[in-house]
Amino acid sequence: MCQPDIELLRRHTASHIMSAAVGMLFPDVKRGVGPWTETGFYQDFDFGEAEVSDKDFKKIEKKMRWIVNKDFKVQKRMLSGEEARAAFPNDEYKLELIDEILDRGEELSFYDFVGEEGRVFYTDLCAGPHLESTGQVGVFKITKLAGAYWRGDENKAQLTRLYGIAFADAEGLEAYQTMLEEAAKRDHRKLGKELDLFTFSELVGPGLPLFTPKGELLRSTVGDYLKQLKESKGYQHVWIPHITKKDLYETSGHWDKYKDDLFHVKGKSDAEFVMKPMNCPHHTQIFASKMRSYRDLPLRLAETTTCYRDEQQGELLGLSRVRSLTVDDTHIFCRIDQIQEEAEGVIDIIRQFYTSLNMWEGDNFWVSLSVRDPEKPEKYLGDPANWDKAESFLESVAKNNDLPYKRIEGEAAFYGPKLDFQFKDAIGREWQLATLQIDFVMPERFKLEYINEEGQKERPVMLHIAIAGSLERFLSVIIEHYAGAFPAWLAPVQAHVLPVNSAHEAHCEKLIETLKEAGARVEYYDSSDSLGKRIRNCQKARVPFAIVVGDKEVESGNLTVRKYGEEKDQVMTVDEFKAALGRG
Amino acid sequence: MCQPDIELLRRHTASHIMSAAVGMLFPDVKRGVGPWTETGFYQDFDFGEAEVSDKDFKKIEKKMRWIVNKDFKVQKRMLSGEEARAAFPNDEYKLELIDEILDRGEELSFYDFVGEEGRVFYTDLCAGPHLESTGQVGVFKITKLAGAYWRGDENKAQLTRLYGIAFADAEGLEAYQTMLEEAAKRDHRKLGKELDLFTFSELVGPGLPLFTPKGELLRSTVGDYLKQLKESKGYQHVWIPHITKKDLYETSGHWDKYKDDLFHVKGKSDAEFVMKPMNCPHHTQIFASKMRSYRDLPLRLAETTTCYRDEQQGELLGLSRVRSLTVDDTHIFCRIDQIQEEAEGVIDIIRQFYTSLNMWEGDNFWVSLSVRDPEKPEKYLGDPANWDKAESFLESVAKNNDLPYKRIEGEAAFYGPKLDFQFKDAIGREWQLATLQIDFVMPERFKLEYINEEGQKERPVMLHIAIAGSLERFLSVIIEHYAGAFPAWLAPVQAHVLPVNSAHEAHCEKLIETLKEAGARVEYYDSSDSLGKRIRNCQKARVPFAIVVGDKEVESGNLTVRKYGEEKDQVMTVDEFKAALGRG
Repeated sequence: MCQPDIELLRRHTASHIMSAAVGMLFPDVKRGVGPWTETGFYQDFDFGEAEVSDKDFKKIEKKMRWIVNKDFKVQKRMLSGEEARAAFPNDEYKLELIDEILDRGEELSFYDFVGEEGRVFYTDLCAGPHLESTGQVGVFKITKLAGAYWRGDENKAQLTRLYGIAFADAEGLEAYQTMLEEAAKRDHRKLGKELDLFTFSELVGPGLPLFTPKGELLRSTVGDYLKQLKESKGYQHVWIPHITKKDLYETSGHWDKYKDDLFHVKGKSDAEFVMKPMNCPHHTQIFASKMRSYRDLPLRLAETTTCYRDEQQGELLGLSRVRSLTVDDTHIFCRIDQIQEEAEGVIDIIRQFYTSLNMWEGDNFWVSLSVRDPEKPEKYLGDPANWDKAESFLESVAKNNDLPYKRIEGEAAFYGPKLDFQFKDAIGREWQLATLQIDFVMPERFKLEYINEEGQKERPVMLHIAIAGSLERFLSVIIEHYAGAFPAWLAPVQAHVLPVNSAHEAHCEKLIETLKEAGARVEYYDSSDSLGKRIRNCQKARVPFAIVVGDKEVESGNLTVRKYGEEKDQVMTVDEFKAALGRG
Repeated sequence: MCQPDIELLRRHTASHIMSAAVGMLFPDVKRGVGPWTETGFYQDFDFGEAEVSDKDFKKIEKKMRWIVNKDFKVQKRMLSGEEARAAFPNDEYKLELIDEILDRGEELSFYDFVGEEGRVFYTDLCAGPHLESTGQVGVFKITKLAGAYWRGDENKAQLTRLYGIAFADAEGLEAYQTMLEEAAKRDHRKLGKELDLFTFSELVGPGLPLFTPKGELLRSTVGDYLKQLKESKGYQHVWIPHITKKDLYETSGHWDKYKDDLFHVKGKSDAEFVMKPMNCPHHTQIFASKMRSYRDLPLRLAETTTCYRDEQQGELLGLSRVRSLTVDDTHIFCRIDQIQEEAEGVIDIIRQFYTSLNMWEGDNFWVSLSVRDPEKPEKYLGDPANWDKAESFLESVAKNNDLPYKRIEGEAAFYGPKLDFQFKDAIGREWQLATLQIDFVMPERFKLEYINEEGQKERPVMLHIAIAGSLERFLSVIIEHYAGAFPAWLAPVQAHVLPVNSAHEAHCEKLIETLKEAGARVEYYDSSDSLGKRIRNCQKARVPFAIVVGDKEVESGNLTVRKYGEEKDQVMTVDEFKAALGRG
C-alpha cells in the first residue's frame, strides 16, 4: 500500500469535518461509515426522529467552515476495546464496528480534532490517514443527500448519506463544476435519446437496453472492426449459448463465490441453468472438445457475446451499468513460453483500436502492470517459477512497446498477473477499458491438456483478453468522449446528401448509390427544408459530413462538403471523400 | 380439410392392423392412441405385467400379415355413449377418451375390421379415415419400441409405443430404407464431429451446442449473407437483450398460453425475468420507442438473435432440436396497402438466398399459402376487410413470382395469413424453412400507432419474416443436404494450398496472402505428408478446392486446382479462382 495522494486525504478529513458539523447541529446523531470516493466523500448518519433535507446543507456548511477556520489538529489515538465502547455508549453502529475490528484481532484507532490546550473537539473511529489539520482542507461543498442501508443490506436500518466534495482552492472547485456541467451536456443517456441510439422499455425491464438502428450500427461497427483486427492475428471466432448448467461453474470454482450474483434459470425440464456472467468456462469446453497437440497452440478463441449479471436496480445507469453486458472476449490457450509473443499481438490490437479512436496518445492513457505482493506469496495459486516468467514477459512487452506503465505490487489476481489499460476521455475522466490477464488456475480446474513435442500431456496457460471490454460501457464512454460527434468511420450515419433544390435530386440519387456501393452510410435529405436549416440539422445530428449538391457539383462531379463543427465547405473528388470515411 | 392422401390412409390402417395383431398375442392389452405420422405410424399400448421387446416384432408382424391377407373390410360404425362404454369395460384409456368426446358434444365413431358373414374381427374408437380393406395396406415393418406417457404427461401411466412404416410395395419400402441409410451417412451429428463444426459439453448441458471455429464460420457466413441481403432491401438491424420482464408477454398475450414452456429467470433483484422464446414483442418496443409518422413506414427491423425454449431433454436432437435457437428474424411495420410491395421484397431475398444454395429449383420447393377457413370466420381476429386484402396481396405475390404454391384453407393463424416455404433436400426430405406471416393482432395488443397523412393516429400491420429460420436447424438441414461438402462461398475452409515440396513454400505463402486479402478462407498444408495423401485428406475434409503449387505454377503464376469430388485438375488464373469462390 502506498500513501494516498493529497486529494484523497483532503476528502477524508472533509468527511470528518462534515460529520463533526452535523454533530454540532444534531447532538443525538449516530454515524455509519464516511470514506473518501473517487470524486469526493460521504458520511452515513442516523438522524433518529430529526428531519434533514438539502435545505440544511447551508447550515452544515457554515459549521464546517467554522471547523476549518479553527484549524484543529487531526491526531491519531489508539484505544482499548473497553475505552472505545465507553466512548460511544449509545451508538449501535460504532459498537458493531468496534466488535468486528476486535474479532479480526486488529487494533482500534481513532482520529481526534484537537484544539487549544489539547482539548478534543471531535473524535471518530477511523483507520486514517488524514491531513494534519482541518485548516488544510480548503474549499468544500455538500452536494447531495440519499438513503443508504447500513452495511448495504436492505434488511438493516436505512441511514441518510450526505455527499460532498473538497478542493485545495476555489479554482479546483470551479474546474470540477465545469467538468460536471460538461459531463451533463454529454451524458450518454441524454445523447442516446437525442441521437436515437438506444431505448429502454418498462415492459422489458431496467438495465436491459434495446439498441435502435443507429445504435446497433455503432455497436456492430465497433464489433466488426474488433473482429477484423482479431482475425488479422489468427484469432478464431466461436459461439456459445447464454446459459449453462451450474456444473460448469462448480468446476471452474465460481459457484461458491458468485452464485448469489447470478441469474438462475429454471424450466419444467431436467436441469437448472444459470445465465453466464462470463465466457471463459464455456470456452474451456471448446478447447477440451478434442485432443490438442502442441501444434494447435496457441489456440485463440474470440467471441463478442452477451453476459448477464444480477445488478441491483438502484445501481443501474444508462449503458454504464447494465444487466446485459456484451463482452468482446478472447481466450488464448498457449504454452508459458508463448505468453510474450501473444501479449505483443494483443498490444498491437489495442494500439490499432484506440489509435483509430484518437485515444492512444501521449498522456491520455496509462497501463497498470499488476504483479504479486512479494510479502504474501501464499495469496497466489500456481507455480512461482511460472509467475516469475509471466510477470517478466508482461513487463518486457510493456517496455518493448514503450507503454507508459506502472508496476503495482499486490494487485495481481490470485490466478495470475495482468495489464490493464486506463484511458482519459475528452473531459479528463479515466476509464479502465482494455485488459490482458494471465490465468494459471482455470486450466488446472478444467484439467485442460495438450500433447507436447515429447508426446506427454501438459497443461496450457490461459490468457483472458478484452479490447473494448463491455460494449455497452465502452459505448457510454465514447458517446460522452465524442459528445456524440463520432469519427467518420464510426458514425452510424456518415453523411447527409443535400440537393440545393429538386433539380439536383437525380444527381444525388446516383451519388448515394455510388457511395453506398463503396460501403458508405449515407442518407438523403430532400429540399423541403431550406439548405441552411438542413445544414444546421445535419450538425445537430452530429453527422460528420453534409454533402451539398447544386449546379456546380452536377457539372464538375466533385463534392462540396461541410465537415461537422466547421464553418467552411471544402471541395473533394468522390475518391477523396471515400478516403475521408476511413480510419485514416 | 381435404382428404389425406393414400399414403397417410395406408399408415393409419396399418396402425389398426398392428393394434389388432398385438391383441391376438396379448389379449389383456389396453390401448392408447395410434395415429399416422409424417413418415409412418405408431400405437401406444399398456401391456400390464407382460414383457414386450423388439424380439416380439417378428411375431407381431406375422399376425399383421395374416390380417392383411384376410383382407378384412374396414367399416365405420357410430355408437352411443352407453354402447361405447360397454364395448371397452376394462380399458380406462378408451373410457377416458369416450367421456372426453361426449363432453365436447361430438359423436363416437368406431372402425371395424369386418370378415366373412359380417363378423367383426377387431374394433377401435377412431375418427378415421382409412383404406377400404386391410389387404390394400401392402408391405409394412415394425421399426422400434419406446416409452410414452399417456397424454404426454409424465405424471400419468407410462405406455409402450410401437412404431411402424407401411408402403404400397417392396420397392417403396426399399427406397425408404435406402433413404434412411443415406440419411444416417450424412447425419449432421456425425458430420459435425468429423468436420469439427460444433460440440456439446456435459458441464454446459444438453440442447446447448457450442460452435467451434469452423462451425462458427459456417454460421457467420450464413448470417452475414442474410444481413447483406436484408440491408440491400432497406432492412435496419437492431439489438435486444435475451431476457425480459414477464410484463412484455402479458401484454403480447403469450404469457397465458406459453408460460410453462419458457425458461424463468430469477436473481436476488427486484423483478422476475423470462428468457425470450421469440423476438417480436421486444421489437414492438423499438417501434414504440418514439412517435412514428407515415413517412417512417415501412419500418423494417432485422436481427439474428438467440431465443431459448424449454424443450424436453428426450426431444433434443443435435442441431435439429435445441434449447438455444438463433432466429434470423425480421419484423416489418407497415400500412395494409404496403404489404404487397414488402412481400415482393421478402420473396426476392428468399429467392436469392436459396438460389445461392441451389435449392430454388423446379420441383425442389413449394409454397403453402395459408388462408382462413371460410366456414369458421369466428376463429380469426381483426377486420375481415383487412384479411381479404392481405390474403389477396399474398396470392398476387405468389402468382407474380411464379411460385409453385398451394392455397390451404383453414391453415392461417388466428392473427393473419402466411406463406411458408418448403424445400426438398438432396435425399428427398422436405423442410419448412422460410416464412412470411402477417399479423393484425400484435400491433393491437401493444397499441402501436403512427400518424398518417391526415395527422391522425393509425395502427400499423406487422409482418414476421424468417429466411433461414432457426440457424441451428437450418445448419442441420444443409449439413445433411450437402453431406458436409458445402458450396465454396459457404465452406468454412474454401481451399487448402499444397506445395509439391518445400521448395514451393515461399510461393504458397505469397499466394495465401493474396487470397486472404481477397477475403478467401484458405489454409496451408505443408509437405510433410505425400501429395496424394494430402489431396485425399482435403477431399475427406470436404474442402472445395485443393490448390497444388509446383515448379510449373511458380513459373506461370497460375493455379492448378482439384475441385472436391472430381478426379481431374483444372488450371486457373488467380482471378478465375477468386471468382469460383463467389456465389456465382
